[in-house]
Amino acid sequence: MKFNVVVVGSTGLVGQRLVSMLSKHQWFNLIGITASKDKANKKYKDVVKWSLENKMPENVEEMIVYDTNIENINNLKPDIVFTSLPTDISKDFDIQLVKQGYVVISHASNNRMDKDVPLLNPEVNADHINVLKLQANRWKGRLIKVPNCATSILTLALKPIYDNFGLRHVFVSTMQALSGAGINGVSSMAILDNIIPYIEHEEEKIENESLKILGELSNESIKPNESFYVSASVHRVNVLEGHLESVFLKTDNDVSVEEIKKSLIEFKENKIKNLNLPTKPSQPIIVRNEIDRPQPRLDRNEGNGMSIVVGRIRKDNRNWIKFNVLGHNTIRGAAGNGVLIGELVAKNYNDIIQ
Amino acid sequence: MKFNVVVVGSTGLVGQRLVSMLSKHQWFNLIGITASKDKANKKYKDVVKWSLENKMPENVEEMIVYDTNIENINNLKPDIVFTSLPTDISKDFDIQLVKQGYVVISHASNNRMDKDVPLLNPEVNADHINVLKLQANRWKGRLIKVPNCATSILTLALKPIYDNFGLRHVFVSTMQALSGAGINGVSSMAILDNIIPYIEHEEEKIENESLKILGELSNESIKPNESFYVSASVHRVNVLEGHLESVFLKTDNDVSVEEIKKSLIEFKENKIKNLNLPTKPSQPIIVRNEIDRPQPRLDRNEGNGMSIVVGRIRKDNRNWIKFNVLGHNTIRGAAGNGVLIGELVAKNYNDIIQ
Amino acid sequence: MKFNVVVVGSTGLVGQRLVSMLSKHQWFNLIGITASKDKANKKYKDVVKWSLENKMPENVEEMIVYDTNIENINNLKPDIVFTSLPTDISKDFDIQLVKQGYVVISHASNNRMDKDVPLLNPEVNADHINVLKLQANRWKGRLIKVPNCATSILTLALKPIYDNFGLRHVFVSTMQALSGAGINGVSSMAILDNIIPYIEHEEEKIENESLKILGELSNESIKPNESFYVSASVHRVNVLEGHLESVFLKTDNDVSVEEIKKSLIEFKENKIKNLNLPTKPSQPIIVRNEIDRPQPRLDRNEGNGMSIVVGRIRKDNRNWIKFNVLGHNTIRGAAGNGVLIGELVAKNYNDIIQ
Amino acid sequence: MKFNVVVVGSTGLVGQRLVSMLSKHQWFNLIGITASKDKANKKYKDVVKWSLENKMPENVEEMIVYDTNIENINNLKPDIVFTSLPTDISKDFDIQLVKQGYVVISHASNNRMDKDVPLLNPEVNADHINVLKLQANRWKGRLIKVPNCATSILTLALKPIYDNFGLRHVFVSTMQALSGAGINGVSSMAILDNIIPYIEHEEEKIENESLKILGELSNESIKPNESFYVSASVHRVNVLEGHLESVFLKTDNDVSVEEIKKSLIEFKENKIKNLNLPTKPSQPIIVRNEIDRPQPRLDRNEGNGMSIVVGRIRKDNRNWIKFNVLGHNTIRGAAGNGVLIGELVAKNYNDIIQ
Repeated sequence: MKFNVVVVGSTGLVGQRLVSMLSKHQWFNLIGITASKDKANKKYKDVVKWSLENKMPENVEEMIVYDTNIENINNLKPDIVFTSLPTDISKDFDIQLVKQGYVVISHASNNRMDKDVPLLNPEVNADHINVLKLQANRWKGRLIKVPNCATSILTLALKPIYDNFGLRHVFVSTMQALSGAGINGVSSMAILDNIIPYIEHEEEKIENESLKILGELSNESIKPNESFYVSASVHRVNVLEGHLESVFLKTDNDVSVEEIKKSLIEFKENKIKNLNLPTKPSQPIIVRNEIDRPQPRLDRNEGNGMSIVVGRIRKDNRNWIKFNVLGHNTIRGAAGNGVLIGELVAKNYNDIIQ
Repeated sequence: MKFNVVVVGSTGLVGQRLVSMLSKHQWFNLIGITASKDKANKKYKDVVKWSLENKMPENVEEMIVYDTNIENINNLKPDIVFTSLPTDISKDFDIQLVKQGYVVISHASNNRMDKDVPLLNPEVNADHINVLKLQANRWKGRLIKVPNCATSILTLALKPIYDNFGLRHVFVSTMQALSGAGINGVSSMAILDNIIPYIEHEEEKIENESLKILGELSNESIKPNESFYVSASVHRVNVLEGHLESVFLKTDNDVSVEEIKKSLIEFKENKIKNLNLPTKPSQPIIVRNEIDRPQPRLDRNEGNGMSIVVGRIRKDNRNWIKFNVLGHNTIRGAAGNGVLIGELVAKNYNDIIQ
Repeated sequence: MKFNVVVVGSTGLVGQRLVSMLSKHQWFNLIGITASKDKANKKYKDVVKWSLENKMPENVEEMIVYDTNIENINNLKPDIVFTSLPTDISKDFDIQLVKQGYVVISHASNNRMDKDVPLLNPEVNADHINVLKLQANRWKGRLIKVPNCATSILTLALKPIYDNFGLRHVFVSTMQALSGAGINGVSSMAILDNIIPYIEHEEEKIENESLKILGELSNESIKPNESFYVSASVHRVNVLEGHLESVFLKTDNDVSVEEIKKSLIEFKENKIKNLNLPTKPSQPIIVRNEIDRPQPRLDRNEGNGMSIVVGRIRKDNRNWIKFNVLGHNTIRGAAGNGVLIGELVAKNYNDIIQ
Repeated sequence: MKFNVVVVGSTGLVGQRLVSMLSKHQWFNLIGITASKDKANKKYKDVVKWSLENKMPENVEEMIVYDTNIENINNLKPDIVFTSLPTDISKDFDIQLVKQGYVVISHASNNRMDKDVPLLNPEVNADHINVLKLQANRWKGRLIKVPNCATSILTLALKPIYDNFGLRHVFVSTMQALSGAGINGVSSMAILDNIIPYIEHEEEKIENESLKILGELSNESIKPNESFYVSASVHRVNVLEGHLESVFLKTDNDVSVEEIKKSLIEFKENKIKNLNLPTKPSQPIIVRNEIDRPQPRLDRNEGNGMSIVVGRIRKDNRNWIKFNVLGHNTIRGAAGNGVLIGELVAKNYNDIIQ
């Protein structure tokens, strides 16, 4: 018995990855894909500017794209809706969907900080899914948010360190790939032989979402972590895929580099929720010991893009820990995480929609 | 009355910039240029792989390159020798030169941390030149060191902040240009669609040299600054010229963003030594207010490559200051600073060699 | 006595270069600049995304941008109008302007092949300006077209070869810079680690415009050259500025490589019209003898971007001539040529408007 | 019964691909790998700078690298030796090996034009293998050459056109990837924002080898094709993998674009030798009909890098055919072709060594 799913906003970069992963998924039937009006009622292959390294799955080439509107979703009656829309559109459409009673896994940034909305990075905080029952006060359906890309990568690296050694300060300077801005997001003239030290709202997202993801679930809501804080500085670089982050952090107690490594390597998943899910990588955090890794082009596809890679773990002379963490931003940082969340939702479907 | 100068190691990237700047300098006569044996006794234009954006000066095209050895320098009898050699060669040759009595301005990293060797970034610490007299205990000549490229750029930004508000912590994550590794330093296959999170010895240089440059001159020697510390994480990116640095810092006392900006804009030069020097930029620190600047390709040539550009000055919610600083790494960070130091030396020549 | 000029479409890449060159021109007063409605009535510095390597001229920073409409031009009453508009808008607006009686130098591709419209590359065919009198049959003003960028570069190289040795076949494979597509013309994700073997309508432009530029002026009109033909294959590459073209050609009679070189080096200007014009480069064609030149980044700024650079001139074993030619596409290939044409027009102004 | 094979020169880019493909090959046992003396007697994983997109095969990580000398090969006694050495070394070592009696498949350019040495691109000229018997006059072993990368890609596209419509002229302008020059072959500073219009000896290779590959086998030797000729112009571009070639050609008789397409799509293999070989792609030539393909990053991996992709097939107004052809230069153009040749050799082993 597979779950019927729809991808709303199927032609952008994240939409393409969702379509690619869901079109042949062991737990899901992809029963519909939508896009903006100008692309509606045409074959997917004729309206999408396919930009992934793997080919378009044959079974979606001929699928007819629906216009993104509530009537079309109502006709399809999916069990789960994955939305990947521009924030301004997503804001309204996500809410329409949950009011109609759908279970929605949304990639846009609106509502991410709502106390009754789980912001999931499953290995880190799958248990936050339990907050969904609070949404019964607001609407019939359920809204789950996929975090910001750089944040998903960062928090997966922080989780075992926080659990084992505590955290006080985290400074992170990111070098983010072009794909994070979408297919036409960055002009080639803007970035050739250059770096752009700015991405709109990105720093606030990293700073705030990290604390929520590493926050605690109480009966009332998700309480953002208050024991530490994150300060971010973000940069767009001329790399196709893979966000590289340079992290400086202070743990509660002094800890050796070897202890940090061990905690990262041994980390497997959220302690509360069992994550026997198809898209979960066998090794969520890969630690490399070479002096010059991780590197985006060489390491971004680890674990089919679902593993993060940590390297250059070292201490400075005031006992701050420094390292680099790399993750595939449109897989681990977006669509792959969305699908993993979808699997978590599927496994707990009856609990969620009760 | 011009000073006679020689460039030792004239065919690398820094050597080329030295030759370019010194070949038509109002205070200097370029009387000789040297390179390794295989290039010696040939015309400069026939052995150099010219890599600068401006053309090779006509008056050096036909200059005959000397083999880098002490006899050739002795025949030339320069007043000042600029050396730009690989560290392992520089280590011996610089010392040979100063033992023979020459005034040497050296770009290699050896001896930079010697207590009686000034490591100069003139606007920041021109007064450190006074330590040269201590070298009379070691040799007849004088050795002056040009700092690491990323460090020169960083310390120029830190100086007014340190002077006005005090400093406790500095975290810096760098994105460094290809030219920093020399003409053939980074393979194109290594860096296309990629970042390399490692540059040998670079982090130690930034961490240690910064404290020396911002250190104090006492009768005995230069005392590294002990009031703050620097922790660095370095990365090589696919940019031709211009090191971009992401800085997080804590001042002694809380300070507003506007006060920081004011201190940077108003900063002109070292308080003790007058710097009426031809290569000194009229505005050493340029502050930009746009949300997305500085950018390497757009801002690296400010002040003919001698100004640094600071932007995105902001505070996080624990009152740490964050900003980006950019500088032209082979001009401000290397040859341009070398020439500026040469001018400082020329102006104080009699004091220095007494 | 300077000529009053207006730049219509002043915020694109070509518009920026026009503004940059005309704002401090010895023969021209820049009395107005226009842009689309959303940018009108604001300061130029606040609406333009400045993308040139040199700074915005101070005297245009504060200029108020006019909306592009005929009333505004009528209020300004310029002697010459430079237009740099998208083709679909240019088509109508250029004609409106000439009907009103203005002398228009237009960069868009419409009307370029009209028999009474000179398509000028001044060193090659300045004499074609004489065809302008035929326009008196159509309108009060005069329309002059700037050729396609790749074509201007190619025809300048072909002219001395055609004049001296005759031409039968020209095959040209281009590698064209990003700037040719405008500031946002090529997405970074599309071109990183890639080549796009297509530019809309470009091959037809090169093939047709070349024959017109090298055509003959008769009493009736400009007759395209019929003695040879051009076949083009175009490619977009990840280079900021500078179109590199690989040319294979057959002359009427066999000719040596040295004779070709001599003809290129000695070429100065159109035989009929004297070109004592400020923007004309002293050496329109520079020949390089190194085995690996011209290269875009190293050679595109020759003659302030107005010279083309030819290299690797050789023959294959059937006596076809092969070479590479490089030119700065937004200067020699667009705005620089536009200004040069403007100067030619100014010098012959009374003849033209009679 | 598998054939024992050795890879001589196993650490360069082509060597890495050979090792990758041969380490788990259904017909071959990889019994030894060699490299230069400084890498000998160490584990492969410790001396190779692994540069492929797929991981190093586990079964070679721990293999001990042999020094490249004849004694080591004699101890290993392989059935087939694949050599991938610098030309100057390969020249001597290949000959040593064949004199000792080995069957050698060599990637270097020496001896490629020898009349009794087959230069194989199996789908095109597998029957040329029959010339090997002539080598009995020279040595005990057999020498087979892998063609130049750009030539393998070009001749595969030319073969069906030549067979069906005849050929008179071929002009080809190449845009070649960085990997063609090896791991450290092109400096990043040389190629960023640039094109290098030169690759040593490449044009002669394309021009001469193409005629040999499309030549005829007679009793005496391979006779280069004399009915047409090739004229090449080569360029290095900032692309990781995948040579793109722009071709202008004249067939014997006029032919339609559709006929050309049909001949390319229907082409499967050499008419004389059956090629039921594991590495042969099911579709050697893929034709794309989009206006802007092939593109290196999107199309280079077709057929696991063994298919070439042809697009933009069109005619100019003198009935010349124009198209772009793309191939993966280190797979189809080098190691993949080497392995395919190895399979052809294995299938005909007894005939060859008789």
